[in-house]
Amino acid sequence: MGRVNRYKRMCDRDDLDLVVAATHPEMHTPVSVAAMNAGKHAAPEVPACYTAEETWQLVEASEKNNRHCYMLENVCYFKEMLMVLNMVRQGLFGELVYCAGGYQHESRVYRFDDNRPWPGEDIMQKYNGNYYPTHPLGPMAQWMDINRGDQFDYLVSVSSKAVGLKKYATEKFGADSAKANRNFTQGDINTTIIRTVKGQTITLYYDLNLPRQYDLMFRCQGTDGIYMHGMQKAYFEGRSPVKNTWEPLENYAEEYEHPLWSVLSDTAKNYGHGGGDYIQFHRLFEALRTGNAPDMDVYDAAAWSAICELSGRSVANRGSSVDIPDFTRGKWKTNAPLGIVRPIV
Amino acid sequence: MGRVNRYKRMCDRDDLDLVVAATHPEMHTPVSVAAMNAGKHAAPEVPACYTAEETWQLVEASEKNNRHCYMLENVCYFKEMLMVLNMVRQGLFGELVYCAGGYQHESRVYRFDDNRPWPGEDIMQKYNGNYYPTHPLGPMAQWMDINRGDQFDYLVSVSSKAVGLKKYATEKFGADSAKANRNFTQGDINTTIIRTVKGQTITLYYDLNLPRQYDLMFRCQGTDGIYMHGMQKAYFEGRSPVKNTWEPLENYAEEYEHPLWSVLSDTAKNYGHGGGDYIQFHRLFEALRTGNAPDMDVYDAAAWSAICELSGRSVANRGSSVDIPDFTRGKWKTNAPLGIVRPIV
Repeated sequence: MGRVNRYKRMCDRDDLDLVVAATHPEMHTPVSVAAMNAGKHAAPEVPACYTAEETWQLVEASEKNNRHCYMLENVCYFKEMLMVLNMVRQGLFGELVYCAGGYQHESRVYRFDDNRPWPGEDIMQKYNGNYYPTHPLGPMAQWMDINRGDQFDYLVSVSSKAVGLKKYATEKFGADSAKANRNFTQGDINTTIIRTVKGQTITLYYDLNLPRQYDLMFRCQGTDGIYMHGMQKAYFEGRSPVKNTWEPLENYAEEYEHPLWSVLSDTAKNYGHGGGDYIQFHRLFEALRTGNAPDMDVYDAAAWSAICELSGRSVANRGSSVDIPDFTRGKWKTNAPLGIVRPIV
Repeated sequence: MGRVNRYKRMCDRDDLDLVVAATHPEMHTPVSVAAMNAGKHAAPEVPACYTAEETWQLVEASEKNNRHCYMLENVCYFKEMLMVLNMVRQGLFGELVYCAGGYQHESRVYRFDDNRPWPGEDIMQKYNGNYYPTHPLGPMAQWMDINRGDQFDYLVSVSSKAVGLKKYATEKFGADSAKANRNFTQGDINTTIIRTVKGQTITLYYDLNLPRQYDLMFRCQGTDGIYMHGMQKAYFEGRSPVKNTWEPLENYAEEYEHPLWSVLSDTAKNYGHGGGDYIQFHRLFEALRTGNAPDMDVYDAAAWSAICELSGRSVANRGSSVDIPDFTRGKWKTNAPLGIVRPIV
């Protein structure tokens, strides 16, 4: 039986509520759509989709079947990202103006591992844009009330030349090896700027194919202050002790710890990604049990993942701006802010 | 006698070799052009010009009169920026791929100081783009061999909403004050991406109107490693002790100190901007005395300052990409790399 038939058969079982698509990334959408069409909720790994067509397929399958499509964006549940959400909500930043973040993770080894489904060598030979945007974009979109009060409007995206993978493969497999002589289309550094309807801006980085320390590089900035993840610094006017001078982010750790972490950290810390994975599934299962809306819906999966193809389209056209569709079809204007405040225990 | 006549009369004196234009920024070009037309070298403060028309005026005045136009971009001479140039030249980064930097300096007070010529309130009511690009762009352009082996190709630029200055003026002068009710056009955060002909990319930030610590935010990255100014960290594959893990930038300070600093630092450190101002004028005067080419020429002043109007044009058109003129008219292909290596003492 082929791979396709196997996942469809799984979706047709009647003893499942939820199908997790932890597959090769190009299968995230087909598996999720099949699951929702079979009456199951879907939880695709990231990104939920690569193309504009797939993005609408997800939205339509979720709406038509009234099933959740909850993309497994675990970074939204990292301790520090939830703390910053808490700080944003409590007004420390004033009016938000700007965020930055990036998936910056040296992962050349995975590019050449034939057994690993995570964005592999094939992806690097097919695309050029930001095809792994959701880890940094998820938390920033939550801080900025995207789909819930504001909406992505347009983006511009520019990639550097692609030289990192060829150099790596040449050194590792030899200059004459097949791996060193593939045509890598994906530029080593992609930079994308997104502007929202209400004038917030985001800079999004993609940096996977050069040697570096892992760093999601988050920055959140408003009329009253700024936070920098990499430096672990913050500054809030009228609160920080020295004018225009960083103080350690640690100073805010106790007062602004997110309630989810206050309650769940003892258990969470034994699970992956510093505990983020545990909190994520805790929230998802809680939503399914109670019937409450999950923290992330199909419109979040769509808006965050749509950056893949849209950035690629901009890159291919000298960075010219590309409109970002409103997948909520206007509902962002009236949707309530994200209600992720305290856990049900 | 009007202001205009006074600077023209100064340019006509026969006991001057060099005219420094440390004026309101919109006078940098007129004063510099008048100086060169009168047979003097010109040293405009930054940016050397705001508009595309002015940019070509500078290039043509310099070429026609065979006079230098040396923009006073002192950040190029900061100790750390020259150290990074030295590290680039000695191959630590491998092949350069990407740089980032920004003028990030809370300077709201200057916006409302009627006696200060530095980009003032009027500039904030007239433009929207990156109208102060050269402090970060100068060192990055030198690292990346711009005008000397590579060339800016195009840019995209996006600004956030403008809310910082109104909030500041409201709190400081009252909601009913004239200052709080002016129409500030300049977005608080501008982000510009530049791509070069050879595929290097640059992210350039502008952040003057929100509370924050001063931070030029430099980043330089290539196939072999990366440097981060704000964090004071670096990583070089095969050299840094722990794989994909930052080490302190300080580890490179002694071995890669730039020769100019090794020789001049005792004197330089008594002057402005950590000594950068001294090194800058030392290099300029040395060039004028010896007849050697200055470290920065009119093409550098043009390319770096042109970002002002070009970014503004992109911002006004939803970030669409704007071509950057080749002010060298093809000479970038054969120009020798910048020869700033050791001082003549």
